[in-house]
Amino acid sequence: MALVVQKYGGSSVADAASIKRVAQRIVATKKAGNDVVVVVSAMGDTTDELLDLAQQISPLPPGRELDMLLTAGERISMALLAMAIANLGHEARSFTGSQAGVITDSTHGKARIIDVTPGRITEAISAGQIAIVAGFQGVSQDKKDVTTLGRGGSDTTAVALAAALNADVCEIYTDVDGVFTADPRIVPTARRIPRISYEEMLEMAACGAKILHLRCVEYARRFSLPIHVRSSFSNREGTWVVAARNSDSDSEGSEMEQPIISGVAHDRSEAKITVVGVPDKVGEAAAIFKTLADAEINIDMIVQNVSAAATGRTDISFTLPGADGPTAMNALQKIQERIGFESLLFDDQIGKVSLIGAGMRSHPGVTATFFSALADAGVNIEMISTSEIRISVIVRLDDVDAAVTAAHRAFDLDADQVEAVVYGGTGR
Amino acid sequence: MALVVQKYGGSSVADAASIKRVAQRIVATKKAGNDVVVVVSAMGDTTDELLDLAQQISPLPPGRELDMLLTAGERISMALLAMAIANLGHEARSFTGSQAGVITDSTHGKARIIDVTPGRITEAISAGQIAIVAGFQGVSQDKKDVTTLGRGGSDTTAVALAAALNADVCEIYTDVDGVFTADPRIVPTARRIPRISYEEMLEMAACGAKILHLRCVEYARRFSLPIHVRSSFSNREGTWVVAARNSDSDSEGSEMEQPIISGVAHDRSEAKITVVGVPDKVGEAAAIFKTLADAEINIDMIVQNVSAAATGRTDISFTLPGADGPTAMNALQKIQERIGFESLLFDDQIGKVSLIGAGMRSHPGVTATFFSALADAGVNIEMISTSEIRISVIVRLDDVDAAVTAAHRAFDLDADQVEAVVYGGTGR
Repeated sequence: MALVVQKYGGSSVADAASIKRVAQRIVATKKAGNDVVVVVSAMGDTTDELLDLAQQISPLPPGRELDMLLTAGERISMALLAMAIANLGHEARSFTGSQAGVITDSTHGKARIIDVTPGRITEAISAGQIAIVAGFQGVSQDKKDVTTLGRGGSDTTAVALAAALNADVCEIYTDVDGVFTADPRIVPTARRIPRISYEEMLEMAACGAKILHLRCVEYARRFSLPIHVRSSFSNREGTWVVAARNSDSDSEGSEMEQPIISGVAHDRSEAKITVVGVPDKVGEAAAIFKTLADAEINIDMIVQNVSAAATGRTDISFTLPGADGPTAMNALQKIQERIGFESLLFDDQIGKVSLIGAGMRSHPGVTATFFSALADAGVNIEMISTSEIRISVIVRLDDVDAAVTAAHRAFDLDADQVEAVVYGGTGR
Repeated sequence: MALVVQKYGGSSVADAASIKRVAQRIVATKKAGNDVVVVVSAMGDTTDELLDLAQQISPLPPGRELDMLLTAGERISMALLAMAIANLGHEARSFTGSQAGVITDSTHGKARIIDVTPGRITEAISAGQIAIVAGFQGVSQDKKDVTTLGRGGSDTTAVALAAALNADVCEIYTDVDGVFTADPRIVPTARRIPRISYEEMLEMAACGAKILHLRCVEYARRFSLPIHVRSSFSNREGTWVVAARNSDSDSEGSEMEQPIISGVAHDRSEAKITVVGVPDKVGEAAAIFKTLADAEINIDMIVQNVSAAATGRTDISFTLPGADGPTAMNALQKIQERIGFESLLFDDQIGKVSLIGAGMRSHPGVTATFFSALADAGVNIEMISTSEIRISVIVRLDDVDAAVTAAHRAFDLDADQVEAVVYGGTGR
């Protein structure tokens, strides 16, 4: 008998009909002889509606109370899901994050999981019950206050709970059939990736693939917990996220048979800031990035031009989440006089296209093939960044689709026919 | 410094604007030098909306999950109220029933409070914070599951918490200025009752006055906790519900000065069942009422006709909550053959009008005055029931208004001018 942890996102439980459909899937898993623990998000737009209510009350609500408010969302969906399962003749018990033993720090709005003590879940399983757990929430270790985990929170709850319960698999249900070699909305012939390593998935997530959150993949890798990403609208196999395929313990396939590139990811949410005319002295760049770090801004790529000998000045460009743009510009303006740079340029008409694959470690020609493909497609490269299993480039926002398509074709990732079906409406 | 527990119902926190208004009242109480603990219900129609969702999922949802679902309602209102108070520059902390130490039995949907251990509330008060507590909910002692208290639950939470905290007063906010000598919608000249004893208030509540629930008044009486019923829309004094006015410890006024009658209550929600032609033998009536008790039906008044000597049969009439009518009729039909009665009559076109007043103990003429007034108004009396401080009669439903008006006038309860203002829309 296997222990399966399943996670359903908000679009999978958007209304009564969806909840009933999910309940049938859960019961089918149980009937197939598995113990089942389910992690569920708030229904569809509930969280946004609650946030809207909070905004009507206060422009800056206390984090503790905002968390108390938002956690009402999963309370509703989990209770309804338990009712739907009971209606199918199976016993289900819903549990809040606190009841499920999801212990966090006290950082309201983006709490980190410190420990998971799922005693009540284990009891429920032992009693033959299906346990339904509220995603995205926990209870703080010191103050016993309700907390939320922030973005990707429900996925993280599922993986953390699966690790603590020593589950056989954590199934993450979404509205597509798994992880694809590229976004099927851009590349209709994108292929489902049957297996991908934690490392590649981490790079994919960091480079804009929205299907799994970085944090939950990191958690799964730490505990070597297999994740199965699949559609809540079909019964097809999805994508297994597992330990690297070339590990000795993995008998399936050898690296020889793996494609060089697993997939092409893209991200339209970044922006670029250029600090123009920075005096080329020791410590100037450090001062700039210290300022940005103090403002809690995550920098992605950085490029520093070769200093023009005539002026003794240089330009520094970096990319960051577009939403952080105003904060970063404000912070930098405040140090303009002290640093003595000339001006600031803000550009949000950029996109990042990334090639990810463990295979590129042993195939030196990848960069050349990638850049040639972009050149042939008439796409200009503005910035470049690489890791051992990834190459990312910044291009014009308008060129993102062409770049993704060209890279996908250049590495023979296209399927013979269209495979991808997006089932839900608005995505996750 | 006094400790004040305030309770606000759903209509007082129906939307963002109402929540902000309530927050101002709470802050004003705090600024006046009081410690304040607030009990709050779910916003407006939230509970009905959640019930509707549950109905879409399952015709008979498990009580545990229904309680989990419904308690989301107070979670939302209490978090928003805490935010609104914070926005006014005061510290507020919201607490679920479980966090506030409201310990109940495990009867989901109508749990009884077993104990209140408000350690976290006391801590919050000591820290100078305003504590906001979810009404209507608790946690079960044995299973640690979330429970709801059923009808009148939020009032009961407020009184129980006030008793446990040894509060000076429990203020119950509603949409009228207090308890009136009659329903102002029927008798526009009804007067606000400034003080009323627990016993009289219990009789008023039991006889259809909806302003306070029986259960919360019982609780307050047991702990001699003063309740102040007042409007959340004005600053006027409301009605104080306190220990009997003729007690030795009460220096205010003597019984001489009290009106004989405190008020006239009415109830349109009852129905009458007549069991026709019951064989006049020992134990027949007992068998009938045993059947009803087994069906968990609360009987109010009972009348048995004098047996007709010719037939050896009698008729038994009783009143019950109208909603229990179908259940009662079904239960009785099942024993018709065994008991051998002739038929059943169901009549929901009745109303109950009750005269309540501790003063009637020492004024023997009350019944005569009451009945004369009804006769003069052309109202026929169908059934009569009395207690030491109450006389109730069953009349035709159409006669209720006339009976209330006549009784109110006969005991000089009319004010010189219209006092009552109903502020809210749909009541509580």
